[in-house]
Amino acid sequence: MTDERIARLALSRLGEPGGLRMAHMIDDLGAARLYDELLAGRDLHGLRGEVAGRLADIHPERDLERAARRGIRWIVPGDAEWPLPLDDLDIAEPLQQLGGTPLGLWVRGPLRLDTLSAPVAVVGSRSATTYGTDVAAELGAGLARAGSTVISGAAFGIDQAAHRGALAGDGTTVAVLACGVDRAYPAAHRRLLDHLAERCAIVSELAPGCAPTRVRFLSRNRVIAALSRGTVVVEAAVRSGALNTASWTSRLHRPLMGVPGPVTSAPSEGVHQLIRSGAATLVTRADDVLELTGAIGEQVSEPARAPTRPRDSLTRPQQQVLEAVPLVRPAAPDSIARTAGLGVAQVRSELVGLAGRGLVEQLPTGWRLAEAAGHG
Amino acid sequence: MTDERIARLALSRLGEPGGLRMAHMIDDLGAARLYDELLAGRDLHGLRGEVAGRLADIHPERDLERAARRGIRWIVPGDAEWPLPLDDLDIAEPLQQLGGTPLGLWVRGPLRLDTLSAPVAVVGSRSATTYGTDVAAELGAGLARAGSTVISGAAFGIDQAAHRGALAGDGTTVAVLACGVDRAYPAAHRRLLDHLAERCAIVSELAPGCAPTRVRFLSRNRVIAALSRGTVVVEAAVRSGALNTASWTSRLHRPLMGVPGPVTSAPSEGVHQLIRSGAATLVTRADDVLELTGAIGEQVSEPARAPTRPRDSLTRPQQQVLEAVPLVRPAAPDSIARTAGLGVAQVRSELVGLAGRGLVEQLPTGWRLAEAAGHG
Repeated sequence: MTDERIARLALSRLGEPGGLRMAHMIDDLGAARLYDELLAGRDLHGLRGEVAGRLADIHPERDLERAARRGIRWIVPGDAEWPLPLDDLDIAEPLQQLGGTPLGLWVRGPLRLDTLSAPVAVVGSRSATTYGTDVAAELGAGLARAGSTVISGAAFGIDQAAHRGALAGDGTTVAVLACGVDRAYPAAHRRLLDHLAERCAIVSELAPGCAPTRVRFLSRNRVIAALSRGTVVVEAAVRSGALNTASWTSRLHRPLMGVPGPVTSAPSEGVHQLIRSGAATLVTRADDVLELTGAIGEQVSEPARAPTRPRDSLTRPQQQVLEAVPLVRPAAPDSIARTAGLGVAQVRSELVGLAGRGLVEQLPTGWRLAEAAGHG
Repeated sequence: MTDERIARLALSRLGEPGGLRMAHMIDDLGAARLYDELLAGRDLHGLRGEVAGRLADIHPERDLERAARRGIRWIVPGDAEWPLPLDDLDIAEPLQQLGGTPLGLWVRGPLRLDTLSAPVAVVGSRSATTYGTDVAAELGAGLARAGSTVISGAAFGIDQAAHRGALAGDGTTVAVLACGVDRAYPAAHRRLLDHLAERCAIVSELAPGCAPTRVRFLSRNRVIAALSRGTVVVEAAVRSGALNTASWTSRLHRPLMGVPGPVTSAPSEGVHQLIRSGAATLVTRADDVLELTGAIGEQVSEPARAPTRPRDSLTRPQQQVLEAVPLVRPAAPDSIARTAGLGVAQVRSELVGLAGRGLVEQLPTGWRLAEAAGHG
């Protein structure tokens, strides 16, 4: 009989994430038995007819091996790293014909999913306002500082701001994608995603290489909600996808929270509706969220810190300089010196040392953080 | 035995509005009996000792007569004009040692308090932001257009914007003051108050001439809440007086509503707390308020219109011109003509006609609305 992990991987490639039929058949037979029956040519509830053409193209062992070579792991229920809160999806009511616990998750990055500390989802509109992204970043930083892991979807707007905020708060943050964890979607967030892969974790139900589709975003949203103790919606127009994540949170009976905004701002309308209807509780800052997700004080016993990374061993002046080096647009040493509050000569010397550790890079116009540097 | 109306007037001058002891003694004995006992020198629960010095200075008949000459009336429970919703104060739990149904109300203006249509209080911070006053004015206008009477306190900021909005929506609005209805408090709102007295109503528990005090503001807030079917708070910092009106609304078991704002704005903090705690429902526009106060559709059978006023008999072009005349800063006829969409010659002619009715006035720099003109 095929190994359960291998069978789950194979089955995940035969259907779409969140497919209810596959989930029910696995519940009935177990993944290994189901896969073996399909391989043996047996037509279970008509499933083989649908997937027969694809069965021959599936090479789960090879997938696993290739992924491992790229630092990507496949975790399944029963694994030590499997995040147990996901299993609540088994009993949550389906939404738009999607649901169920993921067959498994692809993970890229050093952060183990069984060690997430009081994870909270922060989601919202792609077309966010400056107000929205400011609030999301502030919230992400506040949650991170309090030891909460910030979960989001790496999209433009609120998602990106939440991840960035968590990094600025020197905490952990996890991106759940609707495509393979090796892909940068959106492409403009490649640096952010690489950084998360280096320091935290990127997660997906989809195998490396898979492209995002509309239905995959919907399935992905249930994973964001289910990985988290609660979800905060920061700006969501009336038809925003963030409201789908909100619905999953309610279905999981976990706290749904909303950040209000000006009533004259369309991107806040969806949030106001959630609060007005009683579906969401109004929150204005990280403390409100921590209170509602029951995470206050827990960080003492469960520090949410990424594994050791290059900057942990830096001297204090090195850290000061590193914090003053811009992420994107290169800066000259005297500008960095001003920000860091140190002398230019010392800054030049520290920059060279930091470059030797791969943390900063020198361009013709000045210095900036290296692609995969820890800059939180 | 002294007439009940006269007795209530006299007793109201002996104590402060919202005084619980006086209210309880009137409940026990009736106002006429209580006043007569005091006049006869009987010391009821020590009350005479406190008020004896003032008894000789009280001349209720003369007060009534003087007020009537100035168009100010005194209404008491049992009068046809008495607004029955006020009587709920009899059973509401006291707040800061204040409470009880008013002994009576002084009213200045043509609007009868028993004909208020689906009244809604709109209150908030004196130190409001532009966002807050814009939202309050829009809300006041929307409520007014839907036929609701807007109740507020004529203060700077949100109150003023709510009254102005109701007038702009061509509706009715009532100011409840913490001083005599003949006084302009704040002084900068004299024109607004005179306008309300001309067209709508100004209300107070305090006799003409009385000055505002801190405790009178607190008592006044309970009247705002009790006159209204519900209260909307638009911007209120954590220690804002508007939260006192909010508490009264909750004590009266009437809908308490709050308009959210940016979480970065201190004047919205108090409102967010009310919503977050569940004390207030989030509303974003007049329709939300109408739905919660059960006022939708009622305006059809209960039109909320002020009594006949000069402008009701105007021709359509006269109305167009009147609507184009500024309230404060005078404008030249050609500017008014552009706004009204009429020819300058016709506008000049209509302006003269309107001045003849006392609706507009000519100043060296142009035309503006006359002090007491109906400009809604």
